[in-house]
Amino acid sequence: MTTATRWDRIWVNLHVATMVPGDEPYGAIGDAAVAVKDGRIAWVGPAQDLPGLPAMLATEVIDAGGAWMTPGLIDCHTHLVHGGNRAREFELRLNGASYEEIAKAGGGILSTVTATRAADQDRLVADALPRLDALLAEGVTTVEVKSGYGLETDTELRMLRAARALGRLRPVEIRTTLLGAHALPPEFADDAEAYVDLVVREMIPAAAEAGLADAVDAFCERIAFSTAQTRRVFDAARAAGLPVKLHAEQLSDQKGAVLAAEFGALSADHLEYLGTDGVRAMAAAGTVAVLLPGAFYMLREKQLPPILELRSAGVPIAISTDCNPGTSPVTSLLLMVNMACTLFRLTPEEALAGVTRVAARALGLEDRGTIAPGRRADLALWRIGTPAELAYMVGFNPCIQVVRGGLPRDPRMGFAGEAAA
Amino acid sequence: MTTATRWDRIWVNLHVATMVPGDEPYGAIGDAAVAVKDGRIAWVGPAQDLPGLPAMLATEVIDAGGAWMTPGLIDCHTHLVHGGNRAREFELRLNGASYEEIAKAGGGILSTVTATRAADQDRLVADALPRLDALLAEGVTTVEVKSGYGLETDTELRMLRAARALGRLRPVEIRTTLLGAHALPPEFADDAEAYVDLVVREMIPAAAEAGLADAVDAFCERIAFSTAQTRRVFDAARAAGLPVKLHAEQLSDQKGAVLAAEFGALSADHLEYLGTDGVRAMAAAGTVAVLLPGAFYMLREKQLPPILELRSAGVPIAISTDCNPGTSPVTSLLLMVNMACTLFRLTPEEALAGVTRVAARALGLEDRGTIAPGRRADLALWRIGTPAELAYMVGFNPCIQVVRGGLPRDPRMGFAGEAAA
Ligand SMILES: [Zn+2]
Ligand SMILES: [Zn+2]
Repeated sequence: MTTATRWDRIWVNLHVATMVPGDEPYGAIGDAAVAVKDGRIAWVGPAQDLPGLPAMLATEVIDAGGAWMTPGLIDCHTHLVHGGNRAREFELRLNGASYEEIAKAGGGILSTVTATRAADQDRLVADALPRLDALLAEGVTTVEVKSGYGLETDTELRMLRAARALGRLRPVEIRTTLLGAHALPPEFADDAEAYVDLVVREMIPAAAEAGLADAVDAFCERIAFSTAQTRRVFDAARAAGLPVKLHAEQLSDQKGAVLAAEFGALSADHLEYLGTDGVRAMAAAGTVAVLLPGAFYMLREKQLPPILELRSAGVPIAISTDCNPGTSPVTSLLLMVNMACTLFRLTPEEALAGVTRVAARALGLEDRGTIAPGRRADLALWRIGTPAELAYMVGFNPCIQVVRGGLPRDPRMGFAGEAAA
Repeated sequence: MTTATRWDRIWVNLHVATMVPGDEPYGAIGDAAVAVKDGRIAWVGPAQDLPGLPAMLATEVIDAGGAWMTPGLIDCHTHLVHGGNRAREFELRLNGASYEEIAKAGGGILSTVTATRAADQDRLVADALPRLDALLAEGVTTVEVKSGYGLETDTELRMLRAARALGRLRPVEIRTTLLGAHALPPEFADDAEAYVDLVVREMIPAAAEAGLADAVDAFCERIAFSTAQTRRVFDAARAAGLPVKLHAEQLSDQKGAVLAAEFGALSADHLEYLGTDGVRAMAAAGTVAVLLPGAFYMLREKQLPPILELRSAGVPIAISTDCNPGTSPVTSLLLMVNMACTLFRLTPEEALAGVTRVAARALGLEDRGTIAPGRRADLALWRIGTPAELAYMVGFNPCIQVVRGGLPRDPRMGFAGEAAA
């Protein structure tokens, strides 16, 4: 065998949940081997099918000690970058404070807007790093990060720059989403249309020109933006050549998902109040349903997303943390896998697909999310007996190795001393 | 100052949530100092009240960098030691299997009994260690561990020995509870009274004589043991000089808490169906209510424990993981603090007291659970801005130092390489 065909690294003594759809649950291969070269998966299959001895085939051989390997996890909907936190508001509410008292104490999304506007890029990065590190310790290798707490162009772009900076400081790929249409800023309290003008005419073109946004998102809801206003945002995104996503049907059925599907959206997210028309439109458009059980849990919602309908219509389902300071201060994607099963009754296999294969699709990324030749070598190794244990345990992290671009590291070591500038 | 009065260690540049009841929420002291000597807290107060320069007062000075200190956390109700797991049953149910199919596949508590009986002590210890380590990484310094998956004397005692061994392998105090009356073993399927005879005449005396049990517990429920049978167990515990606890009113109101109070029980646990009589009896007896939101969450229960009644009657409330393979495979006590607030509407201060001061009381331990002179120097340091953040975040661990018996360690370093024999 010539050096040209040698692989960089090969894992042996492991089981693999490839997450490639097929006959086997989880696309599982027992007693497998996985090889990588130049940051891509070069070979995966039963170890007995290897074309030679591992040590002859690769520069490095890693004995996985009987662990399971999955694709690196993908958190496809986060608001990881933001100023401050809302612990005070959380506590006031539980201490029995009225809505008025909380508003007086500066609660609500606008308190996060104020804190975010006051934070420079370094501050935003430093505050986000511990949250990001918590995700990475659980085998996450790709994270989507939204803007949406600036609500004016400078801060929205600064949030996106901070998000990009995170991807340079840690072994993770950050995908950025401009969410200028997240809430109405105080400056435009009486004129939503004028604020949408700003998003459409200034923010989206500026973010696109600077190459800071991989997608555009909006919050279509009574308390946020109408379907007509969302359409204006989507038109501007299309003009800028950016794909769209949507916060849709979280609190009421605004037909946002139908609109998202019309624009070929990558995903419509939340969806507790999604109607049959929305399910049908998403299925036809191939739009991913991103479910966010953390927000459902924290808000103690009763209305479940229409799981059975989504499933039978063939709408792909992704799961994410929705990590945000107001309604989902969640930094564990594994816990969301458990909540997707426990609260939404997804199967463990569906939930795991929701943070790998389908989550990749929700970000428009076709190069990851399964373990197959040619895919990115973003992988996670787990000390578990069966893949279902990833969904069954609550608040437990069995991750023993994370691989990004083919390079392994021990997630238990953390990133001590590698703080932001 | 003479060497005799020098402290071993002093923490400066920190805020302290002493959890001592008083005027300040959390018993908080800002800009504090805490000193320890011989494993006990020697001094706590505002740093400006220190009787000299820190370096002159103690052999070692630790700059906490503005962190918050709390008492070490106490998990007062766990089934940490057990054989196997029930991920398969969890998955089968979500995949739509019938109760019969699950029973056929060996599901239910008896599958854990079978696995536990088949495991030797080293196996039980090795399986429990990763779960224990997950707790310890979050600042836990005392853990209660129950038997109850042997349901015959040898295995019950082996479970308790495994629990004791955990306390020698890790910097944690393990308190053991004999739970022989957890379920009816298959050998006694038709004769509960005969099994209670075994518990009363053989198990409890054997555990007491061997010094393996710090308390005795039972599961009083339609699907487990009657109030009359529980009384027999409690009588035997009293004869053996052991305090009692009870799994009570989880699925129906069996008046177990009234019985527990009659025996001066340390705690009655679960309590979703607790009636007013039970609340009154517990208040009069000083019996702690241990709430277990993890089981409530996993079972998707609707009936909340009577929080308002417990609160207004002055029943102390503790919170615990109930870590067990069937109904609460939970290894994060911080997540339980969040669930106690989110699901049960406790305040963050109540929830934090529930895993410190009140949890100590649920174990009959008066030497810990607050930060006050003379108490054990079991402490945790957190990188947070306010104590409420411990309750607000979900799946995030801000613990930066754990102190047991006055000795600090970095919880992020784990115990790699220190596996069980
Ligand atoms: Zn969101
Ligand atoms: Zn229990």
